[in-house]
Amino acid sequence: MDEGNGGPRRAGEVAVIFASTRNGADAAGYDAAAAAMDALAARQSGYRGIESVRGPDGAGITISYWADEAAAIAWRDQPDHAAIRERGRGLWYDRYRVTVCTVVRDYAWCRA
Amino acid sequence: MDEGNGGPRRAGEVAVIFASTRNGADAAGYDAAAAAMDALAARQSGYRGIESVRGPDGAGITISYWADEAAAIAWRDQPDHAAIRERGRGLWYDRYRVTVCTVVRDYAWCRA
Repeated sequence: MDEGNGGPRRAGEVAVIFASTRNGADAAGYDAAAAAMDALAARQSGYRGIESVRGPDGAGITISYWADEAAAIAWRDQPDHAAIRERGRGLWYDRYRVTVCTVVRDYAWCRA
Repeated sequence: MDEGNGGPRRAGEVAVIFASTRNGADAAGYDAAAAAMDALAARQSGYRGIESVRGPDGAGITISYWADEAAAIAWRDQPDHAAIRERGRGLWYDRYRVTVCTVVRDYAWCRA
């Protein structure tokens, strides 16, 4: 989890959950693209943070947070992002699922 | 990602995002508790699936899906679940964040 993007999340923000299974192909290309996409997302209007975890078996969950639905859709339609998504289907992923949600409430706990 | 719970997610369902950082303490106890909680959640009314990923650095994201808000709250208040959460604060986690969302839309892609 990237603590720099760790919240808080506010009611009405949009959470885009990207759950994927990588196949292991082109690891270097994937890593470079993932870093580039994180940086590109952070420059988008309405960006509110990303959390991303990938396990040793190739399963991953990335959640990007957006100020509103319009910002989430603008990110979906951003041309470089769309091109990378196409490359992901061709090369890196066996499957993925995108679930778009609206934040209702949020709370955090941290060891004192 | 547990493909057995891999979707689809339907509009109006509730997604409970649990983003945590483990400290590495009591790994065996944690693993047993996590498996017990997965099994217990699956027996709750309104359960719609769990996806969970943890990376090598201890960061993890678990998302449980519920038919509606009432089902998500019943899970939050389930006594065994509440007791395990207390143990997590005492023992396993350095921090966590819970973000409750409503599903708006969902789509999936799978390699042919």
